Amino acid sequence: MSHTIAIASSNHSAGPVDTALRNRAMQVIPGGLWGHLNAANLPPGYPQYFTRGQGSRLWDVDGREYVDLMCSWGPVVLGHHHPAVEDAVQRQAALGDCLNGPAPVLVELAELLVGMIPHADWAIMSKNGSDATTGCVTIARAATGKRKILIAKGSYHGAVPWCSPSVVGVTAEDRAHVIQFEYNDIASLDYAVDQAGADLAAIIVTAFRHDMSRALEMPTMAFARRAREICDIQQAALIVDDVRAGFRLDLGGSWEPLGVQPDMSAFSKAIGNGYALAAIVGSDRFRPAATKIFTTGSFWCGAVPMAAAVATLTELRRIDGPGLMQKLGERLRSGIADLSAKYAVPVIQSGPAQMPLIQFEGDADFSTGTAFCAEALRHGTYFHPRHNMFLSCAHTEADIDLALRAAEAGFAIIVSIS
Amino acid sequence: MSHTIAIASSNHSAGPVDTALRNRAMQVIPGGLWGHLNAANLPPGYPQYFTRGQGSRLWDVDGREYVDLMCSWGPVVLGHHHPAVEDAVQRQAALGDCLNGPAPVLVELAELLVGMIPHADWAIMSKNGSDATTGCVTIARAATGKRKILIAKGSYHGAVPWCSPSVVGVTAEDRAHVIQFEYNDIASLDYAVDQAGADLAAIIVTAFRHDMSRALEMPTMAFARRAREICDIQQAALIVDDVRAGFRLDLGGSWEPLGVQPDMSAFSKAIGNGYALAAIVGSDRFRPAATKIFTTGSFWCGAVPMAAAVATLTELRRIDGPGLMQKLGERLRSGIADLSAKYAVPVIQSGPAQMPLIQFEGDADFSTGTAFCAEALRHGTYFHPRHNMFLSCAHTEADIDLALRAAEAGFAIIVSIS
Repeated sequence: MSHTIAIASSNHSAGPVDTALRNRAMQVIPGGLWGHLNAANLPPGYPQYFTRGQGSRLWDVDGREYVDLMCSWGPVVLGHHHPAVEDAVQRQAALGDCLNGPAPVLVELAELLVGMIPHADWAIMSKNGSDATTGCVTIARAATGKRKILIAKGSYHGAVPWCSPSVVGVTAEDRAHVIQFEYNDIASLDYAVDQAGADLAAIIVTAFRHDMSRALEMPTMAFARRAREICDIQQAALIVDDVRAGFRLDLGGSWEPLGVQPDMSAFSKAIGNGYALAAIVGSDRFRPAATKIFTTGSFWCGAVPMAAAVATLTELRRIDGPGLMQKLGERLRSGIADLSAKYAVPVIQSGPAQMPLIQFEGDADFSTGTAFCAEALRHGTYFHPRHNMFLSCAHTEADIDLALRAAEAGFAIIVSIS
Repeated sequence: MSHTIAIASSNHSAGPVDTALRNRAMQVIPGGLWGHLNAANLPPGYPQYFTRGQGSRLWDVDGREYVDLMCSWGPVVLGHHHPAVEDAVQRQAALGDCLNGPAPVLVELAELLVGMIPHADWAIMSKNGSDATTGCVTIARAATGKRKILIAKGSYHGAVPWCSPSVVGVTAEDRAHVIQFEYNDIASLDYAVDQAGADLAAIIVTAFRHDMSRALEMPTMAFARRAREICDIQQAALIVDDVRAGFRLDLGGSWEPLGVQPDMSAFSKAIGNGYALAAIVGSDRFRPAATKIFTTGSFWCGAVPMAAAVATLTELRRIDGPGLMQKLGERLRSGIADLSAKYAVPVIQSGPAQMPLIQFEGDADFSTGTAFCAEALRHGTYFHPRHNMFLSCAHTEADIDLALRAAEAGFAIIVSIS
């Protein structure tokens, strides 16, 4: 890992090894790659394939090193190959991972989550964020005997039929009981509640508004309180989808600072520093329903990701991970603001410092953001123009300063082309 | 690992460490455990918690060793800690697992699947079997513009709303476009096709009939051919759910010996010898639709499980894993038949030899099977009375003979209590 990063050639295309892999992939993977990691959606020059990660750094298959501000789109919260996590993983792996039942670490992890998250009385583990959000919805329906689920328009809760951002291959019936409202808009929430009538099973909300391609928005206190109040009155479930934000903003759940406790939360991404795991936690009121539903998966009792999670959460608590990432994010934010002023290029910075988004004023087609990112990438930092980014505890102030140097190259390019 | 296994105390309860863990779990996990690994559904004495696995053996938290005939309900196909798999895992893990995009091993795995499975032109990776089955259904709907999915009554395709064996927390609309038929019953399949009319998107069938608590049944050639013929005529998708059977019966897909090629197959369980991975493979006809749908998950590009899969599939091919497991399964089956004759206790043995089920005649309430299993467990072999079991390539003839000795104790108990 270097303290300076070499500038890639001015050719804004992916490297030859990356290109060769993409060509091979095009033969055997539809469209080259499925889903959110498809580099076709990224600025020119962004690599598709990676060789390795270490701490806050990432190397693509052509040997280019990056200060990584995406952290694998969330999971990597302590940095790649964090010793405390890897030690725990190796100890558990030497014993066993996928057995005929769980290992003792399941109980340890469930106790840790229940002890750490004030609204949690129990936990259920799975693999994907959408396993957890779907499980919450199923439990809410089982508990209430009602069907309607209120979802904020544009919020992402997974790529499964009831909530996928795409309707390709999805039927109308898959969303028959979904009613939309506007995030942070109490009137629209109240209207959706009226539409649900006596059939309201749950309100599900992301920890903050982190819809793709628009400025991030924290939940207002009034909105959060109203959602809680409605669920109390209607005996419905308030579900916080903390899959993306969980364990970066607050170890007690992302709504803990608001003083509003959900009935259930869905976690995944950062829970095990990159090891595949998700969790539902919930309150005692929903325990009987959580006991009655049938939810399972072939690898959900796998012990190694649970050992990773215990180590990750313990380390995040020991070092105050959220506080640390907040400071680093504020350093980045403040540096970007300085560069914005210096180059007279107005930016819109939004979201919590740990999960920032940088946009450019009047950049509706993201062409400025794309040019900025492409140039910053060439200078060794991996930004994203439209999706919130992620800090990790492995970032150092020196990393942030390297990122700001790359950002300065990005600002300079914007000025030169405008 | 021993060549004889100590007989546990005659007390048919779980050990003290297991009991203590269950008591702690009852506080923090709804019902003590979710899903198919919940030991509450198992015969008396079966442990809930496990410490380790090695090859064909498993140790519970109270130190009892078992010859394992469940193989973690499928995933463990080469045995725990298989050196070829662990070497590949360690090499990839030392580089990176969860990065900002896939590692080159993704392309290697997709090429391996496409090369190994005759009906596969492409592959998409995910984490759960239900990710793969749900993806197949979504692709089928996207490709055909139709909605109806035909499912055999009692077949398991995952624990998600459209197909869960439980309807607790599920709405009628989740199954609005599901039509049931009887496995291996052409008249009932034809009737379901008539019901679907012009709206038939797909027929999804498990590789063989492996419904819980009933004798296993191989697909008849006539049934498989009729399913293929219908899908050809109607331009619908024939989907084989090979999640449970995949890579144990035939490395080209479980219907390959029938000469009937599905349009898509869903794989998971055995694909990576216990590492969490699933895959959809499909034919070129469905490639455009597979490109159009949105499917993704936080950990679906994780490189370590893919490295495990490449090593697992390569090793299965090198040693003819399916053939090896078949021979071992036939040794078990033949030994059980001998014991059945010796003790005059008639058994019903069903399913492919690699995934056998042993039931007892006239045992509608499974009391005989439960007594048999409880006693065999006490003698160090982990059988299952109602779910198909799984052989692995790590089983030896000596393991099978140990299992037969444990089975003999089970037969003796049946005779003594009848």
